[in-house]
Amino acid sequence: MLPSCISDTVRGMKSTPECMACLFDQAIRTAQLITPETKIHEKIIRTLAARVAGMSLEDNPAVLSQHVYDVAAEVSGVIDPYKQLKKETNQKAMELLPRLEELVFQSDDPLKNAVHLAVAGNVIDFGINADMDVEKDVLAIAEQSFAIDHLEEFRKQLSPGVKLLYLGDNSGEIVFDRVLLEELLELEADVVFAVKSGPIINDVTMEDAEFTGITGITRVIETGSNDIGVNWEKSSEEFKKIFLEADIILGKGHGNFETLSGSPYNMFSLLKAKCVCVARELGVPLGSIVFRENLL
Amino acid sequence: MLPSCISDTVRGMKSTPECMACLFDQAIRTAQLITPETKIHEKIIRTLAARVAGMSLEDNPAVLSQHVYDVAAEVSGVIDPYKQLKKETNQKAMELLPRLEELVFQSDDPLKNAVHLAVAGNVIDFGINADMDVEKDVLAIAEQSFAIDHLEEFRKQLSPGVKLLYLGDNSGEIVFDRVLLEELLELEADVVFAVKSGPIINDVTMEDAEFTGITGITRVIETGSNDIGVNWEKSSEEFKKIFLEADIILGKGHGNFETLSGSPYNMFSLLKAKCVCVARELGVPLGSIVFRENLL
Repeated sequence: MLPSCISDTVRGMKSTPECMACLFDQAIRTAQLITPETKIHEKIIRTLAARVAGMSLEDNPAVLSQHVYDVAAEVSGVIDPYKQLKKETNQKAMELLPRLEELVFQSDDPLKNAVHLAVAGNVIDFGINADMDVEKDVLAIAEQSFAIDHLEEFRKQLSPGVKLLYLGDNSGEIVFDRVLLEELLELEADVVFAVKSGPIINDVTMEDAEFTGITGITRVIETGSNDIGVNWEKSSEEFKKIFLEADIILGKGHGNFETLSGSPYNMFSLLKAKCVCVARELGVPLGSIVFRENLL
Repeated sequence: MLPSCISDTVRGMKSTPECMACLFDQAIRTAQLITPETKIHEKIIRTLAARVAGMSLEDNPAVLSQHVYDVAAEVSGVIDPYKQLKKETNQKAMELLPRLEELVFQSDDPLKNAVHLAVAGNVIDFGINADMDVEKDVLAIAEQSFAIDHLEEFRKQLSPGVKLLYLGDNSGEIVFDRVLLEELLELEADVVFAVKSGPIINDVTMEDAEFTGITGITRVIETGSNDIGVNWEKSSEEFKKIFLEADIILGKGHGNFETLSGSPYNMFSLLKAKCVCVARELGVPLGSIVFRENLL
């Protein structure tokens, strides 16, 4: 059993009143994805509004957002509203895999290209783009400069046998993560890829890791819960052990940043700052892409 | 005393769950305009959330939005957060007046140009544009086609002496309204311009009508309350009388449309559909500009 006081060091960033307001946008989007019935939408919004009194801005934004998806599931009975969308985005992204591998492994700097593609995967909306456009968009984003770029610090730490925990983010994007995982394995890192234990938004679960072939190339574990990012109290002992023993933690996307920002672990965050609060926390303009080492 | 049952015919459009979610965006924007203190922002959001239980989607969106501005005023003690912004936008727009009058009165079709400029005034954000750009933007919008265009029906009804009640909207925009008012007076319409009785968002009050010289060219009355659009229960007897005796009601902007859409009066709505709910009610794409007769 690991000491419970560790949870005090894994609290993530604080929330803001803007995060509270944003919950209602997330709720409408999710409600509309679940059903066209506006009576259900209304009940989701009303139930969420009633929960605001019990929320604390001391909690991180992911903890607040969790209420949205819990309420939507409770009210509608639909626990995996993104199921179909996740499947489709994985399929579309898998069609790009050979091209992504070519872009990485036939380049002068495979690590750099793999990192850039991995953040491009965080940016692309597979739901609305045709395949050809996706390739164009990916290349455009892969050329974009990082507002914070700690690639060289990351590269220095990648000695053979280094223990690296890779915290996955969304479906579709996971295919781009696969290419970076391949490169990390090529560099002989000892990599573990973490997925959620159950459905939450479009976050990856074991099913996505299997579909994209990641289970065949490296060890994949579950976080122990279906919380956004990392919720230490609800994480499994297996996940906590690997987390604490890792030399490097690589966290993709908003959820992992929101829940782990400020924690005293050797973590690199790779994401696009998609909202004003995360951009502010990172100290970058809204919409920037960053590859940031936590401890620097 | 007018019969109170009339209020049943002045109810406007119904609200949707999206309107409820949108309240929180409005609340954050207003809170940030009032003060940088996030404790106040938080209290505004929490107080608004607690009020959701008492809201009904049978009420129109303006009635729902009223809660935002009531809560913001109650919590912060600031009853006119847009005061400074209203002044500035009026000043900026007044600099354009000679050019706007030139565009209308030196054209082949002054009425058409005045109507187009009046909707352009509803679209422009004076707060962020430099003066020169405003003129460019105004001309671009004035060239845009109406998604619904009942200008010819409007023109037909403009016989000399026709009683027209013009429901004003925002500051800045009021200068563009002035040019349309000048043209309507030129056509010998019997025009009354209505403003709010107190501050609500950036809506025009008697102060704006005076500053822009409208009180000097036509009769200006107050609605009787500081509600968004028209709230029949809280309207003055004077306003109600003029409203019911008008041959034509010309309602500018979202608030007047939201509160009067569907009412059995001869009303023309002149606005840009700035949100999905109003666009849906009008049956036009989001962002369209419309000049629509209610009864057609």
